[in-house]
Amino acid sequence: MTTTGNPQFVKPEERIAVFDNDGTLWTEQPMYFQVAFILDRLKALAPQHPEWKEDSLIGAVLKGDLQPVVAGGMEAAAKLVMVTHAGMTTDEFSTIVEDWLVSARHPKFDRPYTDLIFQPMLELLAYLRANDFKTFIVSGGGVEFMRVWAEKVYGIPPEQVIGSSIVTKFEMVAGAPVLTRLAQMNFIDDHAGKPVGINSHIGRKPIAAFGNSDGDLQMLQWTAAGTGAKFGLLVHHTDSVREYAYEVSAFGKLDVALVEAKAKGWTVVDMKQDWNQIYPFESAK
Amino acid sequence: MTTTGNPQFVKPEERIAVFDNDGTLWTEQPMYFQVAFILDRLKALAPQHPEWKEDSLIGAVLKGDLQPVVAGGMEAAAKLVMVTHAGMTTDEFSTIVEDWLVSARHPKFDRPYTDLIFQPMLELLAYLRANDFKTFIVSGGGVEFMRVWAEKVYGIPPEQVIGSSIVTKFEMVAGAPVLTRLAQMNFIDDHAGKPVGINSHIGRKPIAAFGNSDGDLQMLQWTAAGTGAKFGLLVHHTDSVREYAYEVSAFGKLDVALVEAKAKGWTVVDMKQDWNQIYPFESAK
Repeated sequence: MTTTGNPQFVKPEERIAVFDNDGTLWTEQPMYFQVAFILDRLKALAPQHPEWKEDSLIGAVLKGDLQPVVAGGMEAAAKLVMVTHAGMTTDEFSTIVEDWLVSARHPKFDRPYTDLIFQPMLELLAYLRANDFKTFIVSGGGVEFMRVWAEKVYGIPPEQVIGSSIVTKFEMVAGAPVLTRLAQMNFIDDHAGKPVGINSHIGRKPIAAFGNSDGDLQMLQWTAAGTGAKFGLLVHHTDSVREYAYEVSAFGKLDVALVEAKAKGWTVVDMKQDWNQIYPFESAK
Repeated sequence: MTTTGNPQFVKPEERIAVFDNDGTLWTEQPMYFQVAFILDRLKALAPQHPEWKEDSLIGAVLKGDLQPVVAGGMEAAAKLVMVTHAGMTTDEFSTIVEDWLVSARHPKFDRPYTDLIFQPMLELLAYLRANDFKTFIVSGGGVEFMRVWAEKVYGIPPEQVIGSSIVTKFEMVAGAPVLTRLAQMNFIDDHAGKPVGINSHIGRKPIAAFGNSDGDLQMLQWTAAGTGAKFGLLVHHTDSVREYAYEVSAFGKLDVALVEAKAKGWTVVDMKQDWNQIYPFESAK
């Protein structure tokens, strides 16, 4: 598809590749890393919010009980996002994320979360770019959470990161323009939201899509449909020693997408079998 | 700012330039070209909608009376957008726009609307790109209206076009995924919406912004704020012979932004005085 004259040839400007983030470019266990960020933020902010102790959801979380979050689904998650992600400017939020990344450590590996990126996916990103692809992240995660580090870690610039978002408002504060983050959901970039986000931000169909969970199914369907060169891939988490092995999980459930991948001939990576190196800090097998 | 070591140096990845479209990259009189598209669509669709004759807004428009549209403001405009821009897939809408551009002619110049782009701005886009800028459109116009032709006409790819949008919905139709355009506003990329759209799509501040009306004021404020190399410019429509001369207009009103440009030292182009060529089809003066 990079050879002029080949029936499968795709013009460079149409070489768009989209990547889910959590579980596809980096690890998503024992919880999405942005959830770990939320929990740390709740603890950090709790002294300023004595009323949180009485709150059935936040009070439980502060005591280390995540059951009400899991039981409360999207509504509970949204509440925790709002109290930790809203009420500051976009610049202030970026600084909070940067500071957290410096100090936070992953519980299994005792390393910064940004170390837990997948070496084979870094090589894939580089390979695609060397062939004139534009690489995008299309994630259910918060777009302003990811943009802080995605360029440094993956080489993906902010304008190529698509994600979930809350509403921002333009204001003049002491004569200077700021964008204030409001406690209101703007867009959820997951499941059927992924093709919507792709269309909104990119405006054309990708020709290659990479995911790992049912939340990526519609993105793969949207990318793989139609004629011409197309590529779909799922990362299957099968290595309980070097990473994690799971299909049923609150984070990154893989069920119907795996069935459809097999039916449609999308590539399925078996991490344990197929990857001789998971993380950049490891040596290859 | 392109010279390493200069105190004003800006890294290539941060060289972001944003352009309003209507009145900045192409003409916006006697009405926004997308409004002309809407009027033509209403006429084309009227035979399938006999009930429109009884509608106080659409019925008047079909008889050539635009007064209820002007008087009805955003609400009236939104109604006309919905009946002409929604209820089809994104691919179908693109085809409708493409077909219209082939046949429609501008009333003053009797040329395709896409001929009415500003030659000096094409040269500016090329100059910025030659200096490693990424050039974006940030327009109040419909994002899916502009993306159909912006790459061919300005060399700006779809993923660098930011605009107003309606809600789209992912659906499977006869086993194939489509995005259906719904009669619901999603985002208005004008005035204070422009910095919001820039942040949502680009995720970092531009260092150069180009506009022509009060709808561009907040985009210029957002771009010009802070330290380092910054550039703001307004195109002032002063040539009634070669183009149009106006400040007070339903399309592209220029009032407070002109005052602020002078106060803040943004460049103001006087089209009559400063541009020796307006359109590519003209010879230079």
